Amino acid sequence: MSTAIHHPFDDAVHLAATGTGTFTGQTSPRYANMVGPFGGITAATLLQAITQHPQRLGEPLSLTVNYAAPIADGPFTIIATPTRTNRSTQHWNVTMTQGEVVNTTATAVFGVRRDSFGATEITPPPVAEARTIDPERTPEGIAWMDNYEMRFTAGGLGALGSSTASDSTTTLWVRDNPPRLLDQLSLTALSDVFIPRIMVRLGRLVPAGTVSLSIYFHADAATIDKVGDEPILATARSQHFGTGFADQTAELWTGDGTLLATGHQLVYFKA
Amino acid sequence: MSTAIHHPFDDAVHLAATGTGTFTGQTSPRYANMVGPFGGITAATLLQAITQHPQRLGEPLSLTVNYAAPIADGPFTIIATPTRTNRSTQHWNVTMTQGEVVNTTATAVFGVRRDSFGATEITPPPVAEARTIDPERTPEGIAWMDNYEMRFTAGGLGALGSSTASDSTTTLWVRDNPPRLLDQLSLTALSDVFIPRIMVRLGRLVPAGTVSLSIYFHADAATIDKVGDEPILATARSQHFGTGFADQTAELWTGDGTLLATGHQLVYFKA
Repeated sequence: MSTAIHHPFDDAVHLAATGTGTFTGQTSPRYANMVGPFGGITAATLLQAITQHPQRLGEPLSLTVNYAAPIADGPFTIIATPTRTNRSTQHWNVTMTQGEVVNTTATAVFGVRRDSFGATEITPPPVAEARTIDPERTPEGIAWMDNYEMRFTAGGLGALGSSTASDSTTTLWVRDNPPRLLDQLSLTALSDVFIPRIMVRLGRLVPAGTVSLSIYFHADAATIDKVGDEPILATARSQHFGTGFADQTAELWTGDGTLLATGHQLVYFKA
Repeated sequence: MSTAIHHPFDDAVHLAATGTGTFTGQTSPRYANMVGPFGGITAATLLQAITQHPQRLGEPLSLTVNYAAPIADGPFTIIATPTRTNRSTQHWNVTMTQGEVVNTTATAVFGVRRDSFGATEITPPPVAEARTIDPERTPEGIAWMDNYEMRFTAGGLGALGSSTASDSTTTLWVRDNPPRLLDQLSLTALSDVFIPRIMVRLGRLVPAGTVSLSIYFHADAATIDKVGDEPILATARSQHFGTGFADQTAELWTGDGTLLATGHQLVYFKA
């Protein structure tokens, strides 16, 4: 494991508190997408606001982010409000604004985890070990991708220049580049690390973007800590495309087969 | 198909507008759960508020409902606010309150569907036709279940009195009882028609409840209309149980294999 370094990810999700539950931040050119920031960094930044809130209870359990309007390069304001605090769970509303425009809304559930029955009913996709697969060169002009080391075993970036696929699945080993110790914030961003499934399915670039994203955090903080800066196994597919929208369902696994998180999206596309 | 009748479902989701985006309603004893109302009827009622809002654009695309606090029997207020209206999508915040208490929050995306590439990458579970399976008698004391005709092919209510299962899957043919023409509101409620997966997995009743629920509406209104009052095929499972929480992922299909909606939940449990 590398020693901790000051990482561009931490700059990108950095927030300054300007009041209880009110924060200011700044988009990072390092995490820019073709239009606006990488959706994963926005989700992580919204989660960061809750994490830094003095009334926060426990760990993230679920997060839903709604990408309502384009985010302009520059400063933004986040307001995180606890809507309800129960004994073991806490509900949050979060909004990101630029000037008068609400560009992103989110709800989240945090809570206190405890010992319980445990079981995982799905299995990770069977793949070769990360070290046996070369990282793929990320395409020019998509800044945020440079922050990830991606070792694809299915549906890689090469799929974009090929013909129509019968299946929209992408599977890859992935970690921050340069390596960074995994935490709930980087796991949040990683849950959105997949290019829109419509592009994999059709084998070409098409206009597309996430409209709503939900993440379920299955692993507790100790399990996430144990990953260190090792690659995690990420897989995603669409279940359905139609009438201009598709879903995406994703799984994030540790190298030894522990389920870290699952994610679901509604994606807009034009094709 | 039966002719339209005045249905208890319509009573349960009935709202009176008291201002732009402000509605009052009343819990229905017919849709009571062991504590508070059936979560599916609450989700449908929140969607109803958006549907009846004069500024509503298009059809529901996704809905996330957060069950923050218990809902008491009696009246409630719903406030639905469009946070952003784009050319083809519209984002919503919704809250349900009783007195000063916010008991439920939701976000939703509505939008205008249009012709596009279409494909479904998952398949319905292979089951016998609905008419060949007898409806199961619903248990005493859980009022809401009487409103559904349930024909189980896996993980039925009998599972509760049996031993631990190796898999939390439930699959059933289901429709309103008495039959009612399917619409987006009843489809919303049906996406939550499954008992908590932990009970199927452990083969016994345990304290459990939905904390956050997301629905992706894949079918357009015309496709939903075509279902009429025929049973739909519903299947759900947990992907992971641990630290007092589980997820649930669900699919809702027409009898001829068209995907209507998918749903995802975070569920609290004590076991």
